[in-house]
Amino acid sequence: MAAAASHRAAPEHTHPDDVPVLTALAALADPVRLTLVRELADSEEWSRACGSFDVPVGKAALSHHFAVLRAAGLVEQRDQGPKRVNRLRRPEFDARFPGLLDLVLRRDVGE
Amino acid sequence: MAAAASHRAAPEHTHPDDVPVLTALAALADPVRLTLVRELADSEEWSRACGSFDVPVGKAALSHHFAVLRAAGLVEQRDQGPKRVNRLRRPEFDARFPGLLDLVLRRDVGE
Repeated sequence: MAAAASHRAAPEHTHPDDVPVLTALAALADPVRLTLVRELADSEEWSRACGSFDVPVGKAALSHHFAVLRAAGLVEQRDQGPKRVNRLRRPEFDARFPGLLDLVLRRDVGE
Repeated sequence: MAAAASHRAAPEHTHPDDVPVLTALAALADPVRLTLVRELADSEEWSRACGSFDVPVGKAALSHHFAVLRAAGLVEQRDQGPKRVNRLRRPEFDARFPGLLDLVLRRDVGE
């Protein structure tokens, strides 16, 4: 299992500073990704493996959603043994797009 | 021409207070609609007819984009003779989603 994990390509990341606003908006404008971001915001950094989120999608779709979040500068990932763990890039994203995460993390604006 | 205009159904609007955040983000996460919103922000209220925007889409697509903007509480429209004119619902939208329009109207965050 550890051998299989080590053969997996490391995830590619985009820094929020290199993300256009349309990419950021499109990444957040999806119910599954909004749930991932909200759950990450409520969790310790690096505490959540990709499979630990409460979203109604299969493995391939989930992997796509995480790729979109990485490309939008919202999520950082690293492999820890057989698990891929996550953190929300909150300070970097906030510096680039002030207030956007605060807005989508509010629970009074619906989904 | 005036008769034809009077037969057209009046546009339906959604108040920003009734708009979920995902709807607002999805409305803004499109290059054509972002251009419409930015041009409206730079124009006097009710001064812009639907055909006056510099966007590379046909009439049917443009009509769809305006319907999306109305449904997201971003744009108000009214018929003025043969023309349908527009205003950005900036104060109402700002009250519901503080900072979101300011962010997308910044020109230093790219498209």
